[in-house]
Amino acid sequence: MRVLGIDTSLRSSGVGVVEAAGSRLAAVEYGRVRNADRLPLSACLRRLDEEVRALIARTQPAEAAIEDVFFCKNVRTAVTLGEARGVVIAACAGAGIPVYEYAPRRVKQAVVGYGAADKSQVRRMVMRLLSLAEEPQEDEGDALAIAICHVNRRSSVAALAPEAI
Amino acid sequence: MRVLGIDTSLRSSGVGVVEAAGSRLAAVEYGRVRNADRLPLSACLRRLDEEVRALIARTQPAEAAIEDVFFCKNVRTAVTLGEARGVVIAACAGAGIPVYEYAPRRVKQAVVGYGAADKSQVRRMVMRLLSLAEEPQEDEGDALAIAICHVNRRSSVAALAPEAI
Repeated sequence: MRVLGIDTSLRSSGVGVVEAAGSRLAAVEYGRVRNADRLPLSACLRRLDEEVRALIARTQPAEAAIEDVFFCKNVRTAVTLGEARGVVIAACAGAGIPVYEYAPRRVKQAVVGYGAADKSQVRRMVMRLLSLAEEPQEDEGDALAIAICHVNRRSSVAALAPEAI
Repeated sequence: MRVLGIDTSLRSSGVGVVEAAGSRLAAVEYGRVRNADRLPLSACLRRLDEEVRALIARTQPAEAAIEDVFFCKNVRTAVTLGEARGVVIAACAGAGIPVYEYAPRRVKQAVVGYGAADKSQVRRMVMRLLSLAEEPQEDEGDALAIAICHVNRRSSVAALAPEAI
């Protein structure tokens, strides 16, 4: 099974596609969609949309996973995060790929083993689980961790299967 | 000049395309994108995305206008509104259409003449300005009003020209 994980944000989204064959995990492709600060909102969203659609077309994931929104400083930040999320969710849905959501604590729990793990622990564990030659950058590591979290949940018994959003 | 106005929301977005030739205004097409409550988030966003892209392809607007986010009850509501906005903005940007934002008060000011006008006054004025045979439904009326507001702003002197988001 192939899962696309996305750590969504307007200026720097991490994306990662993980392939699971039995208990073996491998990274198919991962990277970042970065938008310069001077780029207007609409251009950032367009780019995120096109990059996610292109990645889906290239790697053909069966399912996608993103993080829950757990906290936002204010309404403006929440709207901006929502804008990036909306684009990513619509791009997946448009390709017929169901999207699942996980709380950040749950992602850390799945990858490192406890929910309060710090970011560098997550990256090191992602590197190890996927046998990467080097540590992924932070957003990339988060995206791969979200994908791994969903793969783990998927391999649990059917009764505990997650529900798409 | 042809302008697409969108009153964005997850469950019921109004859309309206207005054509301006000199001081004469006409509605090219208007309607609603409604999503039933039982439809999952991803299906709602996909539908909004596809409907807006199809409307743009059919009516070929030169520019688009949406409302500012002025107030949200809480972070969850702001994220959801952002998700719908992100999809709409990316759909316009993907078609090369610049998007402009207006505060709700400003839209009412442009259409009715004062910013505290109520919704039925907006609808009646939209009906009159566009010579519609009947009053538009609320979301449709709001979408057409946003388009009219942008047309008005566009016809002001170049020094006051709005800036796309």
